[in-house]
Amino acid sequence: MSYFSDRHNLCWFLHHEFASQIRRIHRLVGNAFADENYHIIVGNGSTQLYQAALYALSTHPGLPETCRPIPVVSVVPHYSGYPAATDVLRSALYKWAGDANSFDPHTTGGDHYIEVICSPNNPDGLLNNSVFKQITNNIHDLAYYWPQYTPITNAADHNIMLFTVSKCTGHAGSRLGWALVKDKGVASRMVQFVELGTIGVSKDSQLRAATILRAVADGYEEGGAYKLFHFGRKVMTERWDRLRQVVMANGAFSFLEYPPPAYCGFMREETSHLPAFAWLKYEGNLDIEDTENFLRTKHNILTRSGKHFGTESKYVRISLLELEETFNIFIDRMSSII
Amino acid sequence: MSYFSDRHNLCWFLHHEFASQIRRIHRLVGNAFADENYHIIVGNGSTQLYQAALYALSTHPGLPETCRPIPVVSVVPHYSGYPAATDVLRSALYKWAGDANSFDPHTTGGDHYIEVICSPNNPDGLLNNSVFKQITNNIHDLAYYWPQYTPITNAADHNIMLFTVSKCTGHAGSRLGWALVKDKGVASRMVQFVELGTIGVSKDSQLRAATILRAVADGYEEGGAYKLFHFGRKVMTERWDRLRQVVMANGAFSFLEYPPPAYCGFMREETSHLPAFAWLKYEGNLDIEDTENFLRTKHNILTRSGKHFGTESKYVRISLLELEETFNIFIDRMSSII
Repeated sequence: MSYFSDRHNLCWFLHHEFASQIRRIHRLVGNAFADENYHIIVGNGSTQLYQAALYALSTHPGLPETCRPIPVVSVVPHYSGYPAATDVLRSALYKWAGDANSFDPHTTGGDHYIEVICSPNNPDGLLNNSVFKQITNNIHDLAYYWPQYTPITNAADHNIMLFTVSKCTGHAGSRLGWALVKDKGVASRMVQFVELGTIGVSKDSQLRAATILRAVADGYEEGGAYKLFHFGRKVMTERWDRLRQVVMANGAFSFLEYPPPAYCGFMREETSHLPAFAWLKYEGNLDIEDTENFLRTKHNILTRSGKHFGTESKYVRISLLELEETFNIFIDRMSSII
Repeated sequence: MSYFSDRHNLCWFLHHEFASQIRRIHRLVGNAFADENYHIIVGNGSTQLYQAALYALSTHPGLPETCRPIPVVSVVPHYSGYPAATDVLRSALYKWAGDANSFDPHTTGGDHYIEVICSPNNPDGLLNNSVFKQITNNIHDLAYYWPQYTPITNAADHNIMLFTVSKCTGHAGSRLGWALVKDKGVASRMVQFVELGTIGVSKDSQLRAATILRAVADGYEEGGAYKLFHFGRKVMTERWDRLRQVVMANGAFSFLEYPPPAYCGFMREETSHLPAFAWLKYEGNLDIEDTENFLRTKHNILTRSGKHFGTESKYVRISLLELEETFNIFIDRMSSII
């Protein structure tokens, strides 16, 4: 079985059937433009594509050497994976520069910086917009822009958009992400990065994911037996209801306020925000600064501390995507907190 | 489907069935020690594991900062992927330093450098040994140390050994490699690198590869119907015979001299070297310095120039692992060269 999937495609390791199902699912859901104006780049998870985008944007021909390493920023709280993946190799091409809101682009001696916008945001589920309007260097991480998490209010048409099978259908273990990229040069350099890092992406994964995406889209055809995104919304609605009840009852935590429900073009009704993660702040009577530690040691609940997301450790991120059994135990344990 | 494959394993994204088939195939073939003294790290191809090893060796706790970037060397001609993958992000941790034979370790102010040893070597098929004896920082790329390419004369027991499904069974498109690593700290940091880069490795690929490796090993059990490595040797023998004939006939190229046949513990007979690539030097009557260009433009034969492997462009690397149909066309075209 060859390295190559499609020698005539700019992304030569992209399987045509996977590509075709990606375009189809975006047409169906209406969450992003994915027509022939966009190059599809497949990656080993969107994590690899995030790095591929940093590489592509920091190796633009003609970029003055003095601009490097290019600062990379994102609004706090931001996904903990961004700083870690950005700085792992201490690259001379780019480096993590923290919160976009406290970043002054003029200090870079030019407009050479990269902003990552995650929306709905990991960890807090809010709908983020770019702080800076230098749109060519924006990376839009749209992993959670699917109807089970948020109303689909428009088809995104940014220059670089990242998606992942993990958050679309739940197949995290397939390690498959895709980027929709407008600019051919950026797309080529992203392909080059994936080529140098892993010589492409598993065909086994791509073929299986194509089958999965096809089944999801088929479910919405006439006579389709199964509506995955409706199922996802149902589960997320139940989980959020249960979590809200237990959190209201014990009064120890505060929730974020989410945007009001909006008309979802895909569900054809007004839908509410059901983020994949709850973002809780401890507000109880105990003198607790490190909420993660408190929940782990006193209540045997595993969360992720706000400090990993660039903010206070009073905050924790709690996954609502665990197995049903795990989620039930979690709710039981949460209800025992006074 | 979760990110995790085995939460109790140091390499938490390694599927236990794939791990078990890896240990079994090494026991069967006898080409490397793969007992419980070795940690198995799975990667998106051995390319990713090469970079994971560089990362692990250059982030050893206590390594003085002044040693970085750590020089990375390999004997010329060396695999073209090494320098490219080493320098892609211009890391402050390590950098490519070229031919091991012309490298003076004393110039690094210490013994901090990494040597990559590929044996049988890509591109030239020779059996390489390490130039330097600082064995803790050696990376042994044993992708081609399988009985279809070379006699298996001993079970390798180096500190870091890289293998890939691609060259073992031919499934390059599965993008699966594995490292056998003695030191727990090195293994942990390699896992961390794969985690930060791609959050693990496709389970789909691992499960399919486990099935493939199981079938290969089953073929050598009593009553087994199919002996893959014997088939591989048969094909490689035929191809080398045909290539030698046509090259001898036209007299335009010289071959390398390979080591004499040796007793292969796996085949239980003396076997010859049948490298995956031919490494040819143009010696014909025309005034040709760039053999790749000559073969491409005049004879429609695609090869890879010696310049990519750190040596003269009089040399080219020719793959003997192509589809039968492609190989037939190649032989036809080679025979037309005078």
